[in-house]
Amino acid sequence: MKNTKQITTCFVSKWFEKSVANDSIIVVIDLLRATTVISTAFHYGVKEIIPVQTLEEVLTYKDKPNHIVAAERNAKLMEGFDYGNSPFHYMNEEVRGKTLALTTTNGTKALNLTESHHAITGSFVNFDAVVEYLIEKNKDVVLLCSGWKGLFNLEDSIFAGKLASVLMKNGFQNNNDSTLAAIELFKISDADLFGFLSNSSHRKRLQSLNMEEDTKFCLNPTFQSDIVPILKGGRLLKM
Amino acid sequence: MKNTKQITTCFVSKWFEKSVANDSIIVVIDLLRATTVISTAFHYGVKEIIPVQTLEEVLTYKDKPNHIVAAERNAKLMEGFDYGNSPFHYMNEEVRGKTLALTTTNGTKALNLTESHHAITGSFVNFDAVVEYLIEKNKDVVLLCSGWKGLFNLEDSIFAGKLASVLMKNGFQNNNDSTLAAIELFKISDADLFGFLSNSSHRKRLQSLNMEEDTKFCLNPTFQSDIVPILKGGRLLKM
Repeated sequence: MKNTKQITTCFVSKWFEKSVANDSIIVVIDLLRATTVISTAFHYGVKEIIPVQTLEEVLTYKDKPNHIVAAERNAKLMEGFDYGNSPFHYMNEEVRGKTLALTTTNGTKALNLTESHHAITGSFVNFDAVVEYLIEKNKDVVLLCSGWKGLFNLEDSIFAGKLASVLMKNGFQNNNDSTLAAIELFKISDADLFGFLSNSSHRKRLQSLNMEEDTKFCLNPTFQSDIVPILKGGRLLKM
Repeated sequence: MKNTKQITTCFVSKWFEKSVANDSIIVVIDLLRATTVISTAFHYGVKEIIPVQTLEEVLTYKDKPNHIVAAERNAKLMEGFDYGNSPFHYMNEEVRGKTLALTTTNGTKALNLTESHHAITGSFVNFDAVVEYLIEKNKDVVLLCSGWKGLFNLEDSIFAGKLASVLMKNGFQNNNDSTLAAIELFKISDADLFGFLSNSSHRKRLQSLNMEEDTKFCLNPTFQSDIVPILKGGRLLKM
């Protein structure tokens, strides 16, 4: 039987409400860096992740046993927190078995929007696992780009384009222009994504903060994780 | 002195509020077909155009002397109206000197959003005139794509990319990813825009309504108009 499951791409998380169909799987994308951090933290043994909106809320987890807290605003680590939004912070044994409470500028907002849906997170760290999961589940898919403070960003859109491109080769269909645009942007940037993004707003932002190594890892990670983080009751759990 | 005026691209009209700077010129874009119709109607002698939101409101102009009324919903001409959203409807002597009251699915909504701003309309019919106007005025520019019912569309975004590309050659600057994406989409589609858009949602919509000739004209018009329609007191006037 021909698969006629649909792909919808939302370039900015606030479009979510309008374009989502019932019974879809939402892939939340915040490549630089929230969803990359989430994949990395799970890969290094974090037990579960609580995405929260405010710094106040994340601090309520600080003294709980077996919890670690992380915060970022405007791409910067916040004072008073041990962990930030760099994937390298999570590549150590201390995170194993812990519950991570995390707040970021864009990614955790997008996650909170999808709380009542079947939502997972995608990044280049778990790209293959996400593809496999979506093909196996065989539902309509919404690619939800977090964007930057309510605006379009290139890196999330290009990631969505790559994912859409692979899904379409596996029988998924698309009927909206944002997915077509995302695929075109993926195709022209695929040979050198780091170079292509050199003029993008967020890479410039990270560049000015000396976070080039973070960017390189997020775009071209050194390992693949087979974990698909799934949102259940406001927490991200390992599949 | 170096021109450091900024270009901002909004892919969907409802983003307008967030990204507009004071003292900017807003270029409203609804290529298929509202802003193409507007340029064509002015070129053929229409005196002024009143963009209105509702069918009820547009009908209040029906019996006024020297007025013509036009309406479109979901790309279709509405019953009871003499004019619709095809540029060919306006290529006749009867429109000369008339006031046109017009409502469309997306374009007039975008125009109404910009009422308190310095707003003009852009299409391929008046592309050169719009470029000249923006360079002469030398203000920050917001390229406001109407989209389709609140969603991204390819044709408006590609038009914005072409406009941004020419403005940047004339010293304007850009610091947002949506403009970068629009320019890339323009570059890969420029050689055959009609072909490139063959899979786009709106061209398919018009195709199914036998409006291929409209599409061809909107993408590759047979004349250039030197009129820049400007919004003043809720009406579009000739510059």
